[in-house]
Amino acid sequence: MKVLIPFKVTNPKSRLGKILTHRERKELAFNMLLDVVESVKKAGFVPKILSTQRTGLENEIVDSRGLNSAINDWIKSYTPLMIVMSDLAIIRPEDLRNISALESDVVISPGRKGGTNVLLVRNGNFRVSYHGLSFLKHVETARRMGISCSVYNSFYTYVDVDEESDLMEIMIHGKGRSRGFLEKCGFRVEIRGKEPVLVREKD
Amino acid sequence: MKVLIPFKVTNPKSRLGKILTHRERKELAFNMLLDVVESVKKAGFVPKILSTQRTGLENEIVDSRGLNSAINDWIKSYTPLMIVMSDLAIIRPEDLRNISALESDVVISPGRKGGTNVLLVRNGNFRVSYHGLSFLKHVETARRMGISCSVYNSFYTYVDVDEESDLMEIMIHGKGRSRGFLEKCGFRVEIRGKEPVLVREKD
Repeated sequence: MKVLIPFKVTNPKSRLGKILTHRERKELAFNMLLDVVESVKKAGFVPKILSTQRTGLENEIVDSRGLNSAINDWIKSYTPLMIVMSDLAIIRPEDLRNISALESDVVISPGRKGGTNVLLVRNGNFRVSYHGLSFLKHVETARRMGISCSVYNSFYTYVDVDEESDLMEIMIHGKGRSRGFLEKCGFRVEIRGKEPVLVREKD
Repeated sequence: MKVLIPFKVTNPKSRLGKILTHRERKELAFNMLLDVVESVKKAGFVPKILSTQRTGLENEIVDSRGLNSAINDWIKSYTPLMIVMSDLAIIRPEDLRNISALESDVVISPGRKGGTNVLLVRNGNFRVSYHGLSFLKHVETARRMGISCSVYNSFYTYVDVDEESDLMEIMIHGKGRSRGFLEKCGFRVEIRGKEPVLVREKD
């Protein structure tokens, strides 16, 4: 199965701007992408990076259009198709295998705030609509089309990386390059009182 | 199997103080507890509410000691024992059944920030240590004891309710009393730009 991984090159992860420089955010975004690519390969699937600009990575397709137009064009031509967000820093190969083992026309693995973190589409007439509660929109689209839809339940795919507090999840559950990169930046998790907090050692 | 649900009566969910009154926070905490109790019953298990004060609920045991002392005393006397946090407002009966189907000596379902949201203990010598990265501490305790330990992966059990943004998760994925209560309070999720936001209608 083909697995599309959309990747936005410019100004990635802007909400981390308070704790990471622009260059560090770019590096983190890149490391997360590579963690996702690695999980896709380990699951036995073929990753295709759908990038807004050329990055020089293997298996890259450059498409500067918006996310929805680009992905919907792929769905018209290639189903089954899996779409995996590039900031799922703690996703595991088992997640991708479990998703592909579900037999519904559409399988959705939701992210925080109603996002769609992984989507498997087996019906070429399905159309995506990312942004703003896309999880509920995608469930509703499948219902309206009268096709089957499953929710895949996993916190490894639910956790995406947008905010400072998400970095702690990488430090706790991550096993790949993203965690290594954050450690190299000097991040660690400390207990203050009863609460874990993310701290950064400056060298 | 007995399922302990620790419940703190005084000043619950203090971090929601900006958007909910003290009375509303108490009511939300109570509704979340009842959602958890309902899921435990639907899964076919016996809920025991381990409450810091008398509330008048069925199946209540009052214990004013700290969480760790109270639970460790239970583990000494009753294993297998499952411990489920009372603020897992979107937990489903399947989660509890899936956890009990795992055969390890210890099964942990982690929560955000390294918490332990559900814990199944089958070895009476295990001791809990909640607060501050308890997920990693519990994994390490099992390793040190040389007993088997599994991680149960679910976002329905990963989501606990501490902060304002967590209420949105109840509005999106909740099916029980907690969601009904928030709706009654006038909360709904709106899209502003591309982002979903939680808004409250005042009547």
